[in-house]
Amino acid sequence: MYKLILVRHGQSEWNEKNLFTGWTDVDLSSRGVNEAREAGKALKNAGLNIRYSFTSFLKRAIKTNHLILEEMNLLWIPEEKSWRLNEKHYGSLQGMNKTEMVEHFGAEQVQLWRRSYDVRPPALSIDDPNHPANDVRYQNINEKGCTPGTEALVDTVNRIIPLWNNEISEKLKTYKEVIVTAHGNSLRGIIKYLKNISDADIMSLNLPTGIPCVFELDVNMKVVKDYFLADEETLKTLMDEVKNQTKA
Amino acid sequence: MYKLILVRHGQSEWNEKNLFTGWTDVDLSSRGVNEAREAGKALKNAGLNIRYSFTSFLKRAIKTNHLILEEMNLLWIPEEKSWRLNEKHYGSLQGMNKTEMVEHFGAEQVQLWRRSYDVRPPALSIDDPNHPANDVRYQNINEKGCTPGTEALVDTVNRIIPLWNNEISEKLKTYKEVIVTAHGNSLRGIIKYLKNISDADIMSLNLPTGIPCVFELDVNMKVVKDYFLADEETLKTLMDEVKNQTKA
Repeated sequence: MYKLILVRHGQSEWNEKNLFTGWTDVDLSSRGVNEAREAGKALKNAGLNIRYSFTSFLKRAIKTNHLILEEMNLLWIPEEKSWRLNEKHYGSLQGMNKTEMVEHFGAEQVQLWRRSYDVRPPALSIDDPNHPANDVRYQNINEKGCTPGTEALVDTVNRIIPLWNNEISEKLKTYKEVIVTAHGNSLRGIIKYLKNISDADIMSLNLPTGIPCVFELDVNMKVVKDYFLADEETLKTLMDEVKNQTKA
Repeated sequence: MYKLILVRHGQSEWNEKNLFTGWTDVDLSSRGVNEAREAGKALKNAGLNIRYSFTSFLKRAIKTNHLILEEMNLLWIPEEKSWRLNEKHYGSLQGMNKTEMVEHFGAEQVQLWRRSYDVRPPALSIDDPNHPANDVRYQNINEKGCTPGTEALVDTVNRIIPLWNNEISEKLKTYKEVIVTAHGNSLRGIIKYLKNISDADIMSLNLPTGIPCVFELDVNMKVVKDYFLADEETLKTLMDEVKNQTKA
């Protein structure tokens, strides 16, 4: 009945350097640009008729969305940007090297910050120039003063659910096929909600960059079927890459 | 009080080949990509704080808008696409060479088709695969069956005025500084309306590609001041280039 396509942005310059990124607005790497174009080609070859798009306030997702739509000859469809689709905020870990953080805090603590449902990394101070409260793009969001200085996945999920209920599911009803081009953790949040995945099980879900994931939904927005547009080998290689980012 | 920035898309592949383009969805040339980036840099250097953007349904304008916003670090601002900002439809001249059309029909006739206010080029048949009625992107526009098979500038102006009244002027009130990245003739239509230029005088207005034009407007949306963000010499060279497209 409806098709929801989720795509994690292509590799960014900080994915490449293995740094915690969160809300830092870094660009795509050249590999990331290629991944975005390949995602667009895969979606075109799959014969999808996407008619509406969502993305975040961060350029690595926005540019990925543009490259996908360009490859599909769909640059003319609407694009709605929302801060609610931003990556999980990584607090004061943003800009830090993932393997260095493991050496400093231990693998277990870093894994909790990266993948647990409710453990927040140390927060950025509200006076920090990198705190979103000091960034012009977040000045007009509805709930003033609610921009986060850090987030656990539960916080990311809580800000995404209103967007799902009020915007994405409504647009699916009107446009039938909708793409959401966003980030590893904001997409994990949507998938957790759609598939009712437990707080424990969500820890082991790793999303590869640039591989479209198609969710077929019935009229009640229940998931009937979901699959990646990639062969199993490619998928395993890419998922292991994400899982092993903290290994030296 | 308000600032409206108008930018004609960078050079397209068909500008480069000197073909009539209209609603044909051709890409930017590499010169056009550079022009778009330069426009973004000029706007950034001028200290503008654009907070909302409009563009057409055609990729040469959409990609120009993306490149401008990327250079300004403003990819996160909203982008609204409208078919009402499309180039003037050139009917069956689309795809034809401008100088060849002059040889065939004479300079006077071609100049009327290009620059007169109310002379329409020969229309595309509704059965023609290139007629917008047969293009998926125009299936959901409000007035069904009203997609044009040809247009004179008066028709282009008439479809833009509702967008000005209902959307662009409203967004100016909310966002203060708004960019419209579109096409030679759709922008001439806006300028004619804003500056109350006569049907005769609009014939001699030629817009260069990729040079931002800033309109400062008062609370009643009256033009107080308007200027291009380019030195006079560059401007004259570029405007003469547009004027001389039909010369052998």
